[in-house]
Amino acid sequence: MSLLFKNLRIHQVFGANTDVGKTLLTSALVRASATNGNSVFYLKPVSTGPMEDADDEYVKRFAGPHKSNIVTDCLFRFGEPVSPELAARLALNEGKQVTIPTDSSFVTTVATHIRKRATQSPQYSHMYVETAGGVHSPTLSGTTQLDSYRPLFLPTVLIGDSKLGGISATISSYESLILRGYIVDAILLFRDEYYRNWEYLEKYFAERGVHVSSLNPPPPKDSDYEKNLRITEDYYQHLVPSSKEGTIFDVITHLDKCHTRRLEELDSMPRRTLDTIWWPFVQHGHVKEQDITVIDSASSDVFTVYNRGLSSSNTSLLEPQFDGSASWWTQALGHAHPSLTIAAARAAGRYGHVIFPQATHLPALKLAERLVKDGPGKGWASRAFFSDDGSTAMEVAIKMALRAFAVREDGGLAPEQEREKRRNLGILGLKGSYHGDTIGAMDACEEGVYTCEWHEGKGYWLDPPTVSVRNGKTIISLPPAIASETSDGVADIDSGSLGSTYDVSQRLNTPLATVYRKYLEQTLEKIQNGNGRTLGALVLEPIVMGAGGMIFVDPLFQRVLIDVVRGSSSGIGEWSGLPVVFDEVFVGLYRLGLQSTIPLLGVNPDISVNAKILTGGLVPMAITMASKSIFDAFFSDKKVDALLHGHSYTAYPIGCEIANETLEIIDKMSTSKEWSDAKSKWVSAPSSSADNSNAIWSFWDPSFVESVSKLDVVGEVMAMGTVFCVKLRDESAGYQSHSAERLLQSIKDTVGSDNPSPAPGGAPFGINFRTLGNIAYFMLSLNTSPEVIRSVEKRIWTTLTTQSK
Amino acid sequence: MSLLFKNLRIHQVFGANTDVGKTLLTSALVRASATNGNSVFYLKPVSTGPMEDADDEYVKRFAGPHKSNIVTDCLFRFGEPVSPELAARLALNEGKQVTIPTDSSFVTTVATHIRKRATQSPQYSHMYVETAGGVHSPTLSGTTQLDSYRPLFLPTVLIGDSKLGGISATISSYESLILRGYIVDAILLFRDEYYRNWEYLEKYFAERGVHVSSLNPPPPKDSDYEKNLRITEDYYQHLVPSSKEGTIFDVITHLDKCHTRRLEELDSMPRRTLDTIWWPFVQHGHVKEQDITVIDSASSDVFTVYNRGLSSSNTSLLEPQFDGSASWWTQALGHAHPSLTIAAARAAGRYGHVIFPQATHLPALKLAERLVKDGPGKGWASRAFFSDDGSTAMEVAIKMALRAFAVREDGGLAPEQEREKRRNLGILGLKGSYHGDTIGAMDACEEGVYTCEWHEGKGYWLDPPTVSVRNGKTIISLPPAIASETSDGVADIDSGSLGSTYDVSQRLNTPLATVYRKYLEQTLEKIQNGNGRTLGALVLEPIVMGAGGMIFVDPLFQRVLIDVVRGSSSGIGEWSGLPVVFDEVFVGLYRLGLQSTIPLLGVNPDISVNAKILTGGLVPMAITMASKSIFDAFFSDKKVDALLHGHSYTAYPIGCEIANETLEIIDKMSTSKEWSDAKSKWVSAPSSSADNSNAIWSFWDPSFVESVSKLDVVGEVMAMGTVFCVKLRDESAGYQSHSAERLLQSIKDTVGSDNPSPAPGGAPFGINFRTLGNIAYFMLSLNTSPEVIRSVEKRIWTTLTTQSK
Repeated sequence: MSLLFKNLRIHQVFGANTDVGKTLLTSALVRASATNGNSVFYLKPVSTGPMEDADDEYVKRFAGPHKSNIVTDCLFRFGEPVSPELAARLALNEGKQVTIPTDSSFVTTVATHIRKRATQSPQYSHMYVETAGGVHSPTLSGTTQLDSYRPLFLPTVLIGDSKLGGISATISSYESLILRGYIVDAILLFRDEYYRNWEYLEKYFAERGVHVSSLNPPPPKDSDYEKNLRITEDYYQHLVPSSKEGTIFDVITHLDKCHTRRLEELDSMPRRTLDTIWWPFVQHGHVKEQDITVIDSASSDVFTVYNRGLSSSNTSLLEPQFDGSASWWTQALGHAHPSLTIAAARAAGRYGHVIFPQATHLPALKLAERLVKDGPGKGWASRAFFSDDGSTAMEVAIKMALRAFAVREDGGLAPEQEREKRRNLGILGLKGSYHGDTIGAMDACEEGVYTCEWHEGKGYWLDPPTVSVRNGKTIISLPPAIASETSDGVADIDSGSLGSTYDVSQRLNTPLATVYRKYLEQTLEKIQNGNGRTLGALVLEPIVMGAGGMIFVDPLFQRVLIDVVRGSSSGIGEWSGLPVVFDEVFVGLYRLGLQSTIPLLGVNPDISVNAKILTGGLVPMAITMASKSIFDAFFSDKKVDALLHGHSYTAYPIGCEIANETLEIIDKMSTSKEWSDAKSKWVSAPSSSADNSNAIWSFWDPSFVESVSKLDVVGEVMAMGTVFCVKLRDESAGYQSHSAERLLQSIKDTVGSDNPSPAPGGAPFGINFRTLGNIAYFMLSLNTSPEVIRSVEKRIWTTLTTQSK
Repeated sequence: MSLLFKNLRIHQVFGANTDVGKTLLTSALVRASATNGNSVFYLKPVSTGPMEDADDEYVKRFAGPHKSNIVTDCLFRFGEPVSPELAARLALNEGKQVTIPTDSSFVTTVATHIRKRATQSPQYSHMYVETAGGVHSPTLSGTTQLDSYRPLFLPTVLIGDSKLGGISATISSYESLILRGYIVDAILLFRDEYYRNWEYLEKYFAERGVHVSSLNPPPPKDSDYEKNLRITEDYYQHLVPSSKEGTIFDVITHLDKCHTRRLEELDSMPRRTLDTIWWPFVQHGHVKEQDITVIDSASSDVFTVYNRGLSSSNTSLLEPQFDGSASWWTQALGHAHPSLTIAAARAAGRYGHVIFPQATHLPALKLAERLVKDGPGKGWASRAFFSDDGSTAMEVAIKMALRAFAVREDGGLAPEQEREKRRNLGILGLKGSYHGDTIGAMDACEEGVYTCEWHEGKGYWLDPPTVSVRNGKTIISLPPAIASETSDGVADIDSGSLGSTYDVSQRLNTPLATVYRKYLEQTLEKIQNGNGRTLGALVLEPIVMGAGGMIFVDPLFQRVLIDVVRGSSSGIGEWSGLPVVFDEVFVGLYRLGLQSTIPLLGVNPDISVNAKILTGGLVPMAITMASKSIFDAFFSDKKVDALLHGHSYTAYPIGCEIANETLEIIDKMSTSKEWSDAKSKWVSAPSSSADNSNAIWSFWDPSFVESVSKLDVVGEVMAMGTVFCVKLRDESAGYQSHSAERLLQSIKDTVGSDNPSPAPGGAPFGINFRTLGNIAYFMLSLNTSPEVIRSVEKRIWTTLTTQSK
C-alpha cells in the first residue's frame, strides 16, 4: 500500500552508495523546506552507528533558524556502524534484547508512523524518509531496502555519487530503483570539480527525463569539533540561504511540483479514461467517474488505488485493495514480483524480440522442453506451439484438431477438394464452455450473450452434471436428461465429500458411471446420425468452466465422455474417435492446486492449451501442446500442409523467459510449508490412489467454505486451489444479472476488520472482485500469505452475513 | 556481433565500483589460468592514469612463474586518472593529438583485436578483458561501458564490492548487467571479515543461480616500494599457489565449465528444437538441423547466430546476421534497445499486470491519449481498445464495424431477433488482403493457402490496380476488368514518378479516377443486388497488402473506393455507407515512412488497427481505434450491448509503457539528420500539397531501387519507408513458390564485401530474410545506420547481379 497525502509531500531519500552525502543533502532539503515555512518531518527508519553520529542528530544539529518547524524521528537504532542487517545480527549475537522485525512488520511500523505524522501535519508539510547505505543495502530482515520499502511506493530522491566511479554507481542505483518501479523525482549530487560527474549525469539523465541538480560539496572536515561545527554551519548557511535563493530551493520547488502534478494526474485520470479508453466487457453507459478503479501501483496481491472522495486531507489518498479476481485470473506470484521483472529485463537486454519460424533461442526452447517433458505435456505431448493469448491458442488447437480429423477422414491432405465437408466439421463440447473471444474460439461454443454478428455455434454441446457444496454437503446435480436415466430419477445426489467426488478412478465402476456412459453413447449416436455437422473434435475445459459461470463439472462425466468418444479402438500414441482438446487456460498451472487437471480425470488429451498463469501474470503468451499423432497430420513435403498460423511476436523471448522463471518459482513453492499446511486441512477419507498427490485441495479453509455454504443468501459454493466461488440465491440468474455485484458491493470499501491488516503497510484493505451474474468468485495467488487469506475470508464472511440479516 | 571461440574462453571483467580490486582479482585469474597451463590473453581496452600504475603493467608484474604463457594488451591509454570519457576530453583540451573513437569504431577495434588474438590462440586459451571503473563508467565516446561493449556480448565476471555499501553496489551493478542481457558467470569479491558482504551476497545470489566466490583481501600497502612488491607477490603466491588448489582455481574450473556448457548448449539447440518446437508457417518436413537459425543474442539490427559448421576452431562460432525481415516486420529501433528494456522494467516493477475493465493506469491512459489525440487517430478517432496482436485487434475491428452497421440497419439493438441476417453480413475488400491468422480475421479475406478447415470467405474482394517500378519506370498495372474500361484498354500505365503517383489529391480529377469511380460504382451495385452477403464493412490494408505479397495498391483506387462506398450522404462525424476499417498493422507507425497512411489517401477511416511497431518490436500488443459514431453503437444501459471482447492481459502496463517509450523515441528520430538526408534524396516534382510532409520517401537509396528494377532476373521492385521488395521473374509464382528463397539463398552467408563491416564489431554479416513466393523483401528499422543500409544494398546488388549472369 502506498502513502500519498494531499497536504504532506513525502520523499524517500536513497543513496547511490554509502558516504555520498545522503544525510548532508537530506539535511539541506529539510532545512530548505523549513526555511520555506513548511513543517518538516524527517524520518530515519533505521540508524546504525553511535548515537552522537546518528543522522537524526545531525539533521537537528544543522536545522538552522527554522528548527522549530522540524520534527525528527528514528524507529530502529543499532550501535554498530555496519549495514542494518549485520548490525541487528551482531546485536543479537551480543545477547542484546533485540526483536528483528519481519519485512511485513517493518513496513507496517514505518507506514504506521508516517500515517501518524500525517494526521499531525498542518497545512502543507514535507517529509523526508532517509534510508541507510545504498539502494540495495539489506534492511533489518535481510531483504534489501529497495524491496522492503517497495509496498510504501514513496517518490524518490536519489543522492548521486560524485567521486571516481560515481557515474556508474549513480546510474546503476537508478536502474535498480526503476526495476522496482519507483518514481525518481530527482537526483542530487555534489558538484565535484575534478571528477565532474554532475556534468555527465545531468546530460545522461536529461535524455531520460530525470531531474539532476548539483550542489557545492562541504568543506573538508576539521579535526577540532567546535571549529568543524562552525564550518559546517557556515556551509549550510551558504547552501540554504535565508534569501530562499539557489539550487536547493529550486529542488524544493521541483519536488513540490512533482507532488502537485501527481495529485492532479490522479485526479484527472477518471475523466480522461472515460474520454479515450474503450474497455473490454464493460457497458460504458453504466460507468461514471467514481466507478473507475484508478490503479497507481501494485505489489504482492494488492492494488494501490486512488480514493479522491476522502473527507480528511490527512488521510492517504492511496489505499490498498486486494486483487480478488487475480486480475482476471492471471496472477500467481503477486504483482511486480522482482524476479519476474529481472527475467523480463534479462530477455529484453539479450534479445529484444527475434523472429521465430525456423529459428530458435534458449528461452523458447527451454520453455517448450519444460512444458512438454516435465509440465502438463509430460507423458503425451510431443510439441509446443506458441501464440499470444488463450483465445489464439485455442484457435490453433481447433485448427490442429480439425485438420488431424480431416486428414484421417479424407485419407489424405487435399483441402481444396473437400472444402465444404471440412467447413462443416463440428465441435463436441459442454454447455457453458468458453474458449476465448476471437470468432473461431467463440464458434466452438454455443451462442450466448458474448457472441458477435458473425457467430455461428459450430457443434453440439451437452448439458453436464455439476458439483457444488450446498448447506455443507457435496452435491452432484444431474441435468433432467441424465436424472431421468437413473434408478430413482433424483437430480441431486449427495456424493459424500469433495475428496471422494474427485477420486475419479474409484468412481468409474459406480452405477452413476454406467448411467453417464449409456446416456453419452445414445446421445452421441443421435448427434452423429442427425443432419447437423460431422463432429471433428472434443473440446473441454476440464473440471471447471470458468467464464461460463465457474461451473464445476462432475469430473466423472468428463472422464466417461472422453472414454466414450475414444471408444476401444485406440492405437498406442494415436488419437482415436475424435482429437480431444483440453482448454487449461484457466484451470491449468496450479490455479486449481494441481499443475494440470489431467491426473484428476486420469486421461491425457491429444491437444492442450495453457496461458494466464503461464507468464506469471505479467505479459500475454499462450502455448498449444500436441501429441505426435496430431503433429504428423501437418508433416509432409508440401508447404501448404504446414500449420499456417503464426503471430509476429510468436515465442517472444521476454514472454518465454518470464514463463520459465514463473514455473521455476512455482516448483519451489509447491513444496513450501504454506502449501502443505493448506493441503493438510483438506485431507479427506482414504483415497483409492496409493499416494495423495493428486487429491484436490485449496488455499481456502474448508471450514470457511462449509460455513458459507450454509448461509441463507448463498445457494452453493465451491473451492479448489486458489478459487472460491459463491452462487447467490437469485431468481434472475445469468450473465446479465447484477445480483452478486450488488450484494457484495461494500466489500470494495477499505474498512477492514483487521487493523493493522496483514497487507504490507498494515492499512485496512478493500477487495476488488468480479462477478459473473449471480456468481461471485475470489481468487488468490499461489503465494498469498495465510494471514491475508484469513483476512479475506473474514471480510467475505462479514459481508455475506451482514447481507443475510 | 558476439565473439565465441571454441579454443579461447573469454570473460570480460566488470567492477561493481572503482577500487574494488578488479585489477587485483583479474591478475589472480590470469595467473591462475597460466598456472593451469593455459595460454592467457589479458586485454585492457582503455587505461587511464600514469603508465607505471597501468593495469596491464600490474598484471605483468605479478604474472608469476608462468608469465611466459601470458600476453597483455592495452588499446587506448590516457594519463589522467579519471573516467575514460573525461580523460579523453582532458587530453583534447590540452591540445594533444587524440582521436576519440565512436562507439562503433571502438567496439570494432576491440573485436578486431580479440579476433586477431584468437587466430594466434594455441590449443585452449583464456582471455580476460578488463573494463575500467564501474559497470556504467563512460567509455571514450561517452556511452557507458555496459552499452558500448554490448555488441560483443562477452560472458562476464563481476568483481563485487567488499566495503561498506558494497552489497548494494554489487547487486545494482549485477542488475545493470542483466538489463543489457549479459551472462554473468561469476561474482568475485574480497572476503572482508568486518563487513562480511561475501556472506550476504553468496546467499543472495545462490537464490538467483549466480556463482559467488570470496577471496582473501591483499595485505595493507607498504609505503616502501620494494617491500610492497614483496608483500604483494607473497599474497599472490598464497592466492594462486603452484599446487593449483584453492578458491581461485575453483573459479577457473567453474568458468571453464560455463564455457563448455555454452558450447554444448548451442550445439544441441537445433536437435532439441526439432524435437519439441512446432513453428508457425513452417513445413517441418522441409527443415533439417542445419537449416535452423540459432539466435544467441541480438543487438541493433543484427542477430548473433551460431555457426557450428566452421572449419577453423579459431574463428568465432557466433556471427552477425542482419535481421532483414525486421523480425517479421516488428523491429523499429533495433533489438535490445536499452530504453525499451528500462521501460519494460519500470512498468513491471510498478504494476506487474493489473486488471483493466473499469480500471485505469497511467501507461494505458497515456498511450490511448497519444494515439487518439496525437497519433494515427488524430482528427477522427474517439477511443482506443486494447488487445494482444494484429489479428485479435482486427477481429475487434470487424466486431465493431459489423455491429455498427447492424445497429443502424436494424434501427435498434436486438441481436437475438436478427441472428441470420447479421451472420450473413459481409466484408468488402481487395484480393490479396490479409488481416491475421485467427479464424474471424481470415474470414474477412478470400480463401487462400493460409486458410483452415473452418474458413469461409465472408465477403467480396476486388482485384486492385497496383504500383511498381519496372525497368526504372513507375507503372500502374490495371487488372483486365478495369483496363477494359479505359480509353485505350492498355493495362500498364507509366505514371511518371512514385512521388506523383502517391499525390492522390492531385490525381482525383484525372481520367483514371473517373474510370475507377465508374468501375467501382457498377461493381458495388452488382454485388449489392446479387444474392450473396449484405456488405457490412469496407476493410483495407491501405497502400500495401503485406502478407498477400507486398502488393502496392494504387492509392487512388483505394481513395476512390472509399469515396464511392461512403457516397455523398456523409453526416459530419458519422460513418456513412459502410464503416471503413484501416488495417495499419503492417503499414502504420512509420513502416512506410509516415506515421499513418491516412494522409496519403486523404481520408479518415472509422476504425483503424495498429500493432507490430507499436511496441517497439519487443512484446505483443495491438490497438483498435474507433470514431465516436462506432463507439455509440455499443453505448446503452444494457450490459449485452457492450463490446464483449477482452483478453486477460488487455492493456498490460509493460506493453503500454514500451509503446509510449517507442513512440517518444520515434518522434525524436523523425527530425533527425538521417531521416532528412534520406528524404532529400526522394524529393520529387513539386507536389500539389502546400508542404511536402506527406510525400513518400524511403531509407533505401532511390538510385539503388532504380538499378535493381533494371536487372534481368527482376520483374519489378518497390520501396517505401523501411521496405524494399523485389518481385523476381518466375513462371510459378505464388506463396508455394520457392524461387526468391533459392535465388537469394547465398545472401545468408557471412561473406560480406565490406571488411570491416559497418555492423558493430566490424565482422562481415549475412542477411536473414524471408520471402513470399517469388517476392523477396528487406526491411529496416527506423534507426538503421546509413552505413549499414548501404552495405545491405551492396550485398543485395551483388547477390542479384551474380544470379543474373
